[in-house]
Amino acid sequence: MKQISTIKYGAINMIYFDNAATTYIKPKKVYDSLADTLLNYGANAGRSSHSLAAKTSEKVFETREKISGFFDIDTPENVVFTTNATYALNIAIKGLIKKGEHILISDMEHNSVLRPIEALKDEGYSDYSVFATAGDLEKNITSQIKPDTKIIVSNLMSNVNGREIDYRILCKIAKTHKLKLIVDASQIAGHKKISMSHFPDNSVLCAPAHKGLFGIQGAGFAIFKSCNELKPLIEGGSGSESKSRFMPKLLPERLEAGTLPIPSIISLGCGIDYINKIGIDKIEEKINILTDKISQILSEQKNVIFYGGNNGVISFNIKGQNSEYTADILNTNDIFIRAGFHCAPLAHKTLGTYKCGTCRISLSYFNKINEADILNKVLKENFS
Amino acid sequence: MKQISTIKYGAINMIYFDNAATTYIKPKKVYDSLADTLLNYGANAGRSSHSLAAKTSEKVFETREKISGFFDIDTPENVVFTTNATYALNIAIKGLIKKGEHILISDMEHNSVLRPIEALKDEGYSDYSVFATAGDLEKNITSQIKPDTKIIVSNLMSNVNGREIDYRILCKIAKTHKLKLIVDASQIAGHKKISMSHFPDNSVLCAPAHKGLFGIQGAGFAIFKSCNELKPLIEGGSGSESKSRFMPKLLPERLEAGTLPIPSIISLGCGIDYINKIGIDKIEEKINILTDKISQILSEQKNVIFYGGNNGVISFNIKGQNSEYTADILNTNDIFIRAGFHCAPLAHKTLGTYKCGTCRISLSYFNKINEADILNKVLKENFS
Repeated sequence: MKQISTIKYGAINMIYFDNAATTYIKPKKVYDSLADTLLNYGANAGRSSHSLAAKTSEKVFETREKISGFFDIDTPENVVFTTNATYALNIAIKGLIKKGEHILISDMEHNSVLRPIEALKDEGYSDYSVFATAGDLEKNITSQIKPDTKIIVSNLMSNVNGREIDYRILCKIAKTHKLKLIVDASQIAGHKKISMSHFPDNSVLCAPAHKGLFGIQGAGFAIFKSCNELKPLIEGGSGSESKSRFMPKLLPERLEAGTLPIPSIISLGCGIDYINKIGIDKIEEKINILTDKISQILSEQKNVIFYGGNNGVISFNIKGQNSEYTADILNTNDIFIRAGFHCAPLAHKTLGTYKCGTCRISLSYFNKINEADILNKVLKENFS
Repeated sequence: MKQISTIKYGAINMIYFDNAATTYIKPKKVYDSLADTLLNYGANAGRSSHSLAAKTSEKVFETREKISGFFDIDTPENVVFTTNATYALNIAIKGLIKKGEHILISDMEHNSVLRPIEALKDEGYSDYSVFATAGDLEKNITSQIKPDTKIIVSNLMSNVNGREIDYRILCKIAKTHKLKLIVDASQIAGHKKISMSHFPDNSVLCAPAHKGLFGIQGAGFAIFKSCNELKPLIEGGSGSESKSRFMPKLLPERLEAGTLPIPSIISLGCGIDYINKIGIDKIEEKINILTDKISQILSEQKNVIFYGGNNGVISFNIKGQNSEYTADILNTNDIFIRAGFHCAPLAHKTLGTYKCGTCRISLSYFNKINEADILNKVLKENFS
């Protein structure tokens, strides 16, 4: 109990290309933070006032500050912690959208956006239209705005092929047409700079801890920019205003019921420290170099169908093989990718892969250039 | 990155009496599980099929089996993971209760039950009545049953003074009157044996990972016994049936959207292993001995108002002092307790402490008998 025992980095010989699900390799400080959190202040935040609890609260607030700083806003109290990005998107979507409001979503949405919006539609709450992300984004969106359109909900980077949706255009349209804006930054956070200084009022950015921000699984967050009248999805203990039968009015307590996932939150803060130390532009550059190299390898293979690769996310198939089979062959060669639909059927409709799904390679800053060469060799050996 | 570094158990000289918020000391295997999880299989469960992801899925399912075994049910797939017990109670309450159904709750409920039920009431969904837990429990409950009463939602052990509400009586009434049953086992899980073999169909048990079950913060669970037609609160990626616009019909996927808090889930399984190794009866016995000793110490102090102590949870006040002041004095002596309302205003109404709140001492198996003597000394020195 006095130490967290040392365990060897178990799978050093593998190539991990499934970072869009979870980054497997974390910065050393992230691992170290777990022992520190659990042994030096493993109490509850915002509940008791004893030394350990006070230190826990302080550390959680420091993480809110790190997150708000990372996304260029000056209201750390508007960083709401959740268990993952899906939960963050659900509280944003169901908290912000009102009955009768028409919604615009992109054609690259994940089920974490599509399903809650379908649920609102089923309840007779709201209807939605889908805008194309290829071509002239601004025109695609504005041409779909109707008098009752009140909100845009959009991915900023596809989890299927890394397609980017320029948040500056989304922000511009939202400001011009007085629309609310919810963005899913799950894949882009930690890969490219996002500045919420461009965001309109009544906007939200959602992301998980465990992808590009290098935290451990168990936390996500929604950053609210000047949002009022949010309806909580979950009610419970809030540590403050205990006697009220309602959740507190102010963020973050209003939307954070019950005990927070402290170890994951703290680890996320350490992940952001690491990104700041390296520099996000340098991370973006390295990931892009590797993305381009792998994209080129795939494009040069005759029997590969290549569906695009950007920002560390690449989709392909081997002609005549289903994606699961291809992934299995790579797996036997210790190359770990994901096959199938990646919980994003709408994106597959857009990309023309709705029937077959795709093989997805997804990268992190910790992937190495020579891993592309090994992939090339394995693909040639098995699929030429 | 190759090791989780070793950090000394930081606060060895303190007395941690805030275990009803979070158990601070965990079994060594729980700490060790973090390194194992993150370094040997830190991928996503139920998503990709590569070796790391498959091992992650297997380990998560093993934890479902450990939990279902611990609570005597044979359907591990009905163990739904959440971020904490509050979230578990919310999905149970909002998933099971239908419009127009009258609800019975105990007079010792936490805000994690009271607030979601008040929210349902505000939406014109359901009304509720409160039954007394002192005296003849069966009579107290059955006398409140109306023709439209369809569900009992009840704590099994108060987080304010450890008062126990006999689940066998709740189960008997639910079976006799064909009521649904949701129990909040947050404080009792890991302290006393609960067997869901007694539970009726359409019942749910909710608990967090990080209290008596010794997991780290970030996970909770709801165990559903033969519940159908559950409406999800959160929709998103489920890893299966990706193409459907709805969440999958079957548990656990139906209620588990997005990435699971894997490190916390695995640590919870290790906590249960530890409890099974020691024996829950032995844990209960040790906690009861220490509870009795501290209760006696408090009862013997002339200036202490004692509100009861059972099963490791004890509430008191020092005459003429508010609870926060008393907690601060103890804190300066490195004794960490919680003061205030403990997010349970209804329980304070029941106990007559609604105006003042209480000081709460809450124990775990890892507290030591001599800690009671130190508490006694500090109380005498400061409040005699």
